[in-house]
Amino acid sequence: MRKLEKKIPVGILGATGTVGQKFITLLDHHPYFEITSLVASERSAGKRYREACSWKQNVPLPPEIGDMTVLSLEKDLDCRILFSGLDSSVAGEAESRCAEKGHWVISNSKNHRMDPDVPLVIPEINPDHYGLIRRQKTSGKIVTNPNCSTMFLAMVLAPLYRSFGIDAVSVTTMQAVSGAGYPGVSSLDILGNVIPLISGEDEKMETETVKILGLLDGGEIRNASFKVSAQCNRVPVIDGHMETAAVRLNGSPARKDISDTLASFRGFPQEHNLPSAPESPIMVLDDPAGPQPLRDLSVYGGMSALVGRLRPCPVMGTKMVILGHNTIRGAAGAAVLNGEALFELGYFE
Amino acid sequence: MRKLEKKIPVGILGATGTVGQKFITLLDHHPYFEITSLVASERSAGKRYREACSWKQNVPLPPEIGDMTVLSLEKDLDCRILFSGLDSSVAGEAESRCAEKGHWVISNSKNHRMDPDVPLVIPEINPDHYGLIRRQKTSGKIVTNPNCSTMFLAMVLAPLYRSFGIDAVSVTTMQAVSGAGYPGVSSLDILGNVIPLISGEDEKMETETVKILGLLDGGEIRNASFKVSAQCNRVPVIDGHMETAAVRLNGSPARKDISDTLASFRGFPQEHNLPSAPESPIMVLDDPAGPQPLRDLSVYGGMSALVGRLRPCPVMGTKMVILGHNTIRGAAGAAVLNGEALFELGYFE
Amino acid sequence: MRKLEKKIPVGILGATGTVGQKFITLLDHHPYFEITSLVASERSAGKRYREACSWKQNVPLPPEIGDMTVLSLEKDLDCRILFSGLDSSVAGEAESRCAEKGHWVISNSKNHRMDPDVPLVIPEINPDHYGLIRRQKTSGKIVTNPNCSTMFLAMVLAPLYRSFGIDAVSVTTMQAVSGAGYPGVSSLDILGNVIPLISGEDEKMETETVKILGLLDGGEIRNASFKVSAQCNRVPVIDGHMETAAVRLNGSPARKDISDTLASFRGFPQEHNLPSAPESPIMVLDDPAGPQPLRDLSVYGGMSALVGRLRPCPVMGTKMVILGHNTIRGAAGAAVLNGEALFELGYFE
Amino acid sequence: MRKLEKKIPVGILGATGTVGQKFITLLDHHPYFEITSLVASERSAGKRYREACSWKQNVPLPPEIGDMTVLSLEKDLDCRILFSGLDSSVAGEAESRCAEKGHWVISNSKNHRMDPDVPLVIPEINPDHYGLIRRQKTSGKIVTNPNCSTMFLAMVLAPLYRSFGIDAVSVTTMQAVSGAGYPGVSSLDILGNVIPLISGEDEKMETETVKILGLLDGGEIRNASFKVSAQCNRVPVIDGHMETAAVRLNGSPARKDISDTLASFRGFPQEHNLPSAPESPIMVLDDPAGPQPLRDLSVYGGMSALVGRLRPCPVMGTKMVILGHNTIRGAAGAAVLNGEALFELGYFE
Repeated sequence: MRKLEKKIPVGILGATGTVGQKFITLLDHHPYFEITSLVASERSAGKRYREACSWKQNVPLPPEIGDMTVLSLEKDLDCRILFSGLDSSVAGEAESRCAEKGHWVISNSKNHRMDPDVPLVIPEINPDHYGLIRRQKTSGKIVTNPNCSTMFLAMVLAPLYRSFGIDAVSVTTMQAVSGAGYPGVSSLDILGNVIPLISGEDEKMETETVKILGLLDGGEIRNASFKVSAQCNRVPVIDGHMETAAVRLNGSPARKDISDTLASFRGFPQEHNLPSAPESPIMVLDDPAGPQPLRDLSVYGGMSALVGRLRPCPVMGTKMVILGHNTIRGAAGAAVLNGEALFELGYFE
Repeated sequence: MRKLEKKIPVGILGATGTVGQKFITLLDHHPYFEITSLVASERSAGKRYREACSWKQNVPLPPEIGDMTVLSLEKDLDCRILFSGLDSSVAGEAESRCAEKGHWVISNSKNHRMDPDVPLVIPEINPDHYGLIRRQKTSGKIVTNPNCSTMFLAMVLAPLYRSFGIDAVSVTTMQAVSGAGYPGVSSLDILGNVIPLISGEDEKMETETVKILGLLDGGEIRNASFKVSAQCNRVPVIDGHMETAAVRLNGSPARKDISDTLASFRGFPQEHNLPSAPESPIMVLDDPAGPQPLRDLSVYGGMSALVGRLRPCPVMGTKMVILGHNTIRGAAGAAVLNGEALFELGYFE
Repeated sequence: MRKLEKKIPVGILGATGTVGQKFITLLDHHPYFEITSLVASERSAGKRYREACSWKQNVPLPPEIGDMTVLSLEKDLDCRILFSGLDSSVAGEAESRCAEKGHWVISNSKNHRMDPDVPLVIPEINPDHYGLIRRQKTSGKIVTNPNCSTMFLAMVLAPLYRSFGIDAVSVTTMQAVSGAGYPGVSSLDILGNVIPLISGEDEKMETETVKILGLLDGGEIRNASFKVSAQCNRVPVIDGHMETAAVRLNGSPARKDISDTLASFRGFPQEHNLPSAPESPIMVLDDPAGPQPLRDLSVYGGMSALVGRLRPCPVMGTKMVILGHNTIRGAAGAAVLNGEALFELGYFE
Repeated sequence: MRKLEKKIPVGILGATGTVGQKFITLLDHHPYFEITSLVASERSAGKRYREACSWKQNVPLPPEIGDMTVLSLEKDLDCRILFSGLDSSVAGEAESRCAEKGHWVISNSKNHRMDPDVPLVIPEINPDHYGLIRRQKTSGKIVTNPNCSTMFLAMVLAPLYRSFGIDAVSVTTMQAVSGAGYPGVSSLDILGNVIPLISGEDEKMETETVKILGLLDGGEIRNASFKVSAQCNRVPVIDGHMETAAVRLNGSPARKDISDTLASFRGFPQEHNLPSAPESPIMVLDDPAGPQPLRDLSVYGGMSALVGRLRPCPVMGTKMVILGHNTIRGAAGAAVLNGEALFELGYFE
């Protein structure tokens, strides 16, 4: 972990939303970053943050943040980095404009993820992809993290891909309502129900995963060549995305080799001891009925992927259950870790 | 539908349990069958049914059933057919004993399903498998229906298997709590949670499906040769098992051909207009966000499989969502339809 | 029940909302009324109803209704009666305008309920209050039914008030999410939670109850003189408002007298056999753990109040649990019954 | 807080149950007490604790506790204090026997609470009632804490009773499923439902409250003379008992005086800075929609009562919402605080 004399001033785009609120809880007392700007829609601009937002986190709103005045995007923002939790209806243009004005935009929004010159990075897996920013013509830069359900699948596939090679992946998700923001999913739609559609989510998992595991080659990403098929569902759970994955690996590695490969996986955040890095990015559980959203989400501050029921699959070779905290590692925490990795690599100098 | 002079007297094994209760609601005023015996454990025997059971159905207990005295298995039962909703901890031996005493046992329990001389039948698919009973040495006979999650998968696979051939199937289930009986799943385990294990359920789906779609050949079932991989989960839903299925069909049939094949599927119960037969065993929905347990379960009295989101799968070729009413077509209704088909085929004469 | 040559043409205000949808299901094939106009906001006007609404009822949308074109309020409507399920943000002015244009407005909205010249009527209790409309200066008239939680309390209090007199009532509600319309309550707010505030609901119960039980005297309502105190809560239930009520009756009637008074209560709808009238407006249950929303809501088509756990209260004298179907008798069904009663009384001639 | 040279050895009765598990989490690294004996039924005795119990807490089982061997009650137990989370079906006799053998039994079970010589104590309210133990003839002693729903009502009533006097209290509860232990409430009974009966719970609230607020006078408790009426309900919430209370105070104190009286309440645990004492036993919230189980339970480690919506009641004078953590302050935490208070008062010397 690098030392620094003075914290870097950062702003939060979409500060009143659920991802924006989570950014606040994760950046409060952060060793590298200091929140200096809270940006939200015209409707909120000019108000105290405390009044502008309906705070839904289960830790109290830090009082000094509550006292800050919400700014609109029209203002010149006095901060080097903008963490973006903007809604996808506005994020595309807004983030581009911020990059043109010279800000680093570290975004959780989907809009720029698949742009050919925008890094889509999980720091444990592909920090070299940050190099793509050289292709961005703006004075500021945009860096993104994956969708909340892609995150945990990609985390688990990365070490398998490197150790064994992957031929194909079939995944079904059971996703928590917090993934849809607030107010998000109506209680009338989800109490005692399952909704077998999350609009656009199948496609995100299928395309983002192979970009993240792709190769940066001559300034371009060559996607990983395996196929991913996703079937995404919403279930009546507050936090925690569950996924059943069936994976066809090259060769026929033994269960123990797969398990060891997952459990021993470490990456840049662990090697450099970044503030938000989980000790292990992947936890492999022995509990035959785990992991479960209600019990296991708090491991390593919600920054790890949990794997359970790792076993042979008669169709694909290997199957397992994956769980992760969708609003922490699957959203704001992913962006914060990108910020920390970029800092550690000297990008902000 | 055949005419009969006098209804056939039937008994219910495990009459106080949830499957037993559902048998009562389905057999009340049935054109073929008349409930004459209610059998339960020693603890209940001798009591009025009304007092012995905790009625959990959302239709009232028929008063004349409530007045009946619960019998124990030790008694000689004055009925030709026994519908069994016994718990698997006792069903194996009890059902064998009843067959020895000369009863037809039409069972929803798992114990005898995989016995080589016991038919495991969905009347739309494999009524010819009833022929296996010739191998049973007892004066009575045992016939079974599949597990609640197998039921809907097998229903959907059957016409695809016949029209196109199947190479492999990968399925993930999201199963309702009513599938576990009463009291079944503790609220502390499932409120706001997903449990990624239903003990033995993966195996049931993987083995029962290929027996049902197998070929009766020289008095033996040759299992269908494709592989099934199942990953079964419990979700906080009262009724309705959801399944995401990815299927590798032979050839590359067009989506429309697959859809037409499913929607036009008819079998013995439809051809013979059996009392509990749904008009269509499979309903294909256009609703992009359907089917859903809370909305769509009541179609055809809960006796159909509902298919939605039928679409290409980059890994397996075809994928879809399947939903069915687990306590009706997935349990008691399946056994009743077996009883009706056996009657229609003249087995009880 | 009166005979009529030709059904009365009726329109639905707010036809695409949840109350509007329920009006459609209740008025489909109604013996008195025929839906001829569906009215909704400018956003929906001009579209087919099928496209304009997101149908959430668990019976299918009648096809001929689905084909109708949605109208805006600016249009002249060719119908005598307008059933209103408008949102309270617009209902006040819109309903007044419709009355000025000559329509009968039978409204479920809160806006005009407490107007001194607007009847707030439960037909079993105070159909004489319809007489208030003489004070309305417009050519059309407005008639209202109470709030969904007031409905069941007032139904139960009415026979007690008449037989014994009431001194005070303390009530706590546990209300279903469907009471808040769609999308209504966010799943993030209510999954596994209780919200101890429903804005304005305490006041509605406290003021509407005493108007309904008041006396029409010289063209004015004199409120019943007892006090009501309400504490309203939202719970994670789809349909069904539960209420615990403690009532101080005059004298000290025996439990059996109270029970008989409730169970034998009948009113105008029962006497005149109105189409939507429940056989008994109040059902008293013996089940010590009832009534429950998941089990008991369908009694008499959701048009009755269910009473359970009737017992002495050490503080108020008598206490009990009350349950009712909030979207049927608590909303659209209440308005339909008002329409039927007005018809029977000859108001539409 | 007193110093001690060596921690006091304590045992846990019913160690594998939910209250027993919570005792383990609360006593792990406790400054006064050290767990030396884990006692459970014959079925568990002899096993490692890790194997004997199904750990359901959301903190990990301390490894050294997991390694301990479970004992049966037949054994001589080497510990001065036994914290009891026994089921009421066995607690009565078992706790008496332990007291005869010389142990202090600090119990959360209901069996001895209303015994005339057994203290029923909330240390903030009535620590003088410990004096009742002088009437117990056994060498060991039994001390109890109230039922989980009584706890929070009594906490809130205590300062009001002392400052103003109370005439009557009417309370309705909405209780979490964890209050019923494990497996406890079946998911089939409570998903999307409310159950208006918790067997015996109304009576516990009505009788325990007035004992706790009673006066120890000549070796006997004279109950407080006001009446309590309770209506207890189960709701689909994991942790957290909500209560709506209406209270008739003597005089007509202003809302502000009531609020200040509640917020400033302190008792023996606060004055002596006991390890488990919350800084404030009662927190008064301004949030108009609070408190809520999903948001507010973690205040002061779950050891406080939260009060919201404090406002005038037209019937009783004052009404409010109360929330508390039923498995911490409402059960195991209450017993631990009794243990700490008894230690501080020198009872164990």
